[in-house]
Amino acid sequence: MQTAAPGTTRIGWIGTGVMGRSMCGHLLAKGYHATIYSRTREKAEDLIAKGAAWAASPREVAAQSDVVFSIVGFPADVREVLLGHHGALAGAAPGTVLVDMTTSEPSLAVEIETAAKAKGVHSLDAPVSGGDIGARNAALSIMVGGDTAVVDSVRPLLECMGKSIVHQGPSGSGHHTKMVNQILIAGNMVGVCEALLYGFRAGLDVEKVLQSVGGGAAGSWSLNNLGPRIIKGDFEPGFYVEHFIKDMGIALAEAKQMGLVVPGLALTHQLYLAVQAQGMGRKGTQSLILALEHIAGIKR
Amino acid sequence: MQTAAPGTTRIGWIGTGVMGRSMCGHLLAKGYHATIYSRTREKAEDLIAKGAAWAASPREVAAQSDVVFSIVGFPADVREVLLGHHGALAGAAPGTVLVDMTTSEPSLAVEIETAAKAKGVHSLDAPVSGGDIGARNAALSIMVGGDTAVVDSVRPLLECMGKSIVHQGPSGSGHHTKMVNQILIAGNMVGVCEALLYGFRAGLDVEKVLQSVGGGAAGSWSLNNLGPRIIKGDFEPGFYVEHFIKDMGIALAEAKQMGLVVPGLALTHQLYLAVQAQGMGRKGTQSLILALEHIAGIKR
Repeated sequence: MQTAAPGTTRIGWIGTGVMGRSMCGHLLAKGYHATIYSRTREKAEDLIAKGAAWAASPREVAAQSDVVFSIVGFPADVREVLLGHHGALAGAAPGTVLVDMTTSEPSLAVEIETAAKAKGVHSLDAPVSGGDIGARNAALSIMVGGDTAVVDSVRPLLECMGKSIVHQGPSGSGHHTKMVNQILIAGNMVGVCEALLYGFRAGLDVEKVLQSVGGGAAGSWSLNNLGPRIIKGDFEPGFYVEHFIKDMGIALAEAKQMGLVVPGLALTHQLYLAVQAQGMGRKGTQSLILALEHIAGIKR
Repeated sequence: MQTAAPGTTRIGWIGTGVMGRSMCGHLLAKGYHATIYSRTREKAEDLIAKGAAWAASPREVAAQSDVVFSIVGFPADVREVLLGHHGALAGAAPGTVLVDMTTSEPSLAVEIETAAKAKGVHSLDAPVSGGDIGARNAALSIMVGGDTAVVDSVRPLLECMGKSIVHQGPSGSGHHTKMVNQILIAGNMVGVCEALLYGFRAGLDVEKVLQSVGGGAAGSWSLNNLGPRIIKGDFEPGFYVEHFIKDMGIALAEAKQMGLVVPGLALTHQLYLAVQAQGMGRKGTQSLILALEHIAGIKR
């Protein structure tokens, strides 16, 4: 397969939310030509101003592209923009590569691959971690599933967006790896929020507590990045509660299918449903501490 | 109060287990004279060979000392060696400082302080994190509760054992801070073990997965230090399951008293009781993954 390069490889981009806009922007900045589609056109204006061409559907995007990236909300959206009547696969010529960067279902990635191969089209799952800041700084961790030759052909594109690109295995492995990532975060967020709540209630100076505990065996990215936000009372989203709930739902379904028992993940999922029920679905995941306060009848 | 110094300050040490032996050894190495006591004398031979004097009880230790350290197993042991008939307080002259470094109950620290003050004796709670390696390398994080003047007077001694010494507040604050530390670890260990188990079951190359997830938002000390041990099948103790269960029990009792709801901690405590019930109380905390496998009927 030919390795992607500016001038020869035509890019397609589906989904220009906070993440997609930054990521596609990096490809434009490297000189790639891009055709884009988004459910809400206003969210694409930025990229159009930078030279991207607009298309009326994912299908039309694919008709103009050699490599089509998608990063949308939920697995149902992935299904629609890739496999739907106006989806990318319907417009893709043989040899096209579909790269879904949404955090989605491993089994859907396998289904997409099967449908794609029947048309001579390639597909990869390549979800990311690193959030909006990682996307903006081209510092994402990209976890890739699919055939090695296909991964290699698009690696130069992925390297425009991320600083860690690891091919994890066959189709679905990218999503599975992202699930590992989310299960790790789930357990840790419960620990972080319960621990800080304990600290507040015990009357400790929690900033001083972080000096004692942040650098040792209790230390973590979540503690050291979200802990200070919690202390300041900043619950704005780095990562949306409702997206985290979606991800944990996928992980729970996959775990069930694999015959795993994951009581910690199940509890965390339930607690985040409480956060959402309390109206904080569009707040950051650190809002879990507010839900725990609410459960215990604690008023701020 | 006078600041501790070798030659003038006589040290007492109660409890020469893995932690205490290293910690007391650092004081001897700095030229302090030490009188020591341990339930099992053989565990003190090392220190005696290095010049420490043996005493027949905590009471006799205190009678020979200006500053008495204790690091024993459970809160009941702390009560016995400090407040019991043959305990340190019974032998302590006015002006003596008792420093309990066991991970123990905040309320017990307050009780010790009250009993000590009635005799003109000072007391501090100063539990540590960093494990046997931190103790050996004098790199512990020491979380101190008690009066400022008392903390300042023994700071040179604490600096012989740790690299982070933070005065967290009045008596009990050291233990409360350690509870924050343990609640953080509890949540995170569930995440680490469930996530790695998911990775194994999904057929991923888990070492490769760590490359993708270890440095980002899912990263933590536990993942990056215990993850590789789990992958290698190494369940030897860095930190004993049974000690972790003790610590979580203290945190749960304190949380209940403060009117907190800590479902994640409660679940983790239960899961570790399962680990212990399966005969792994003297294994390392990473053994949780074995209990999860057992629960799901997975055979290695």
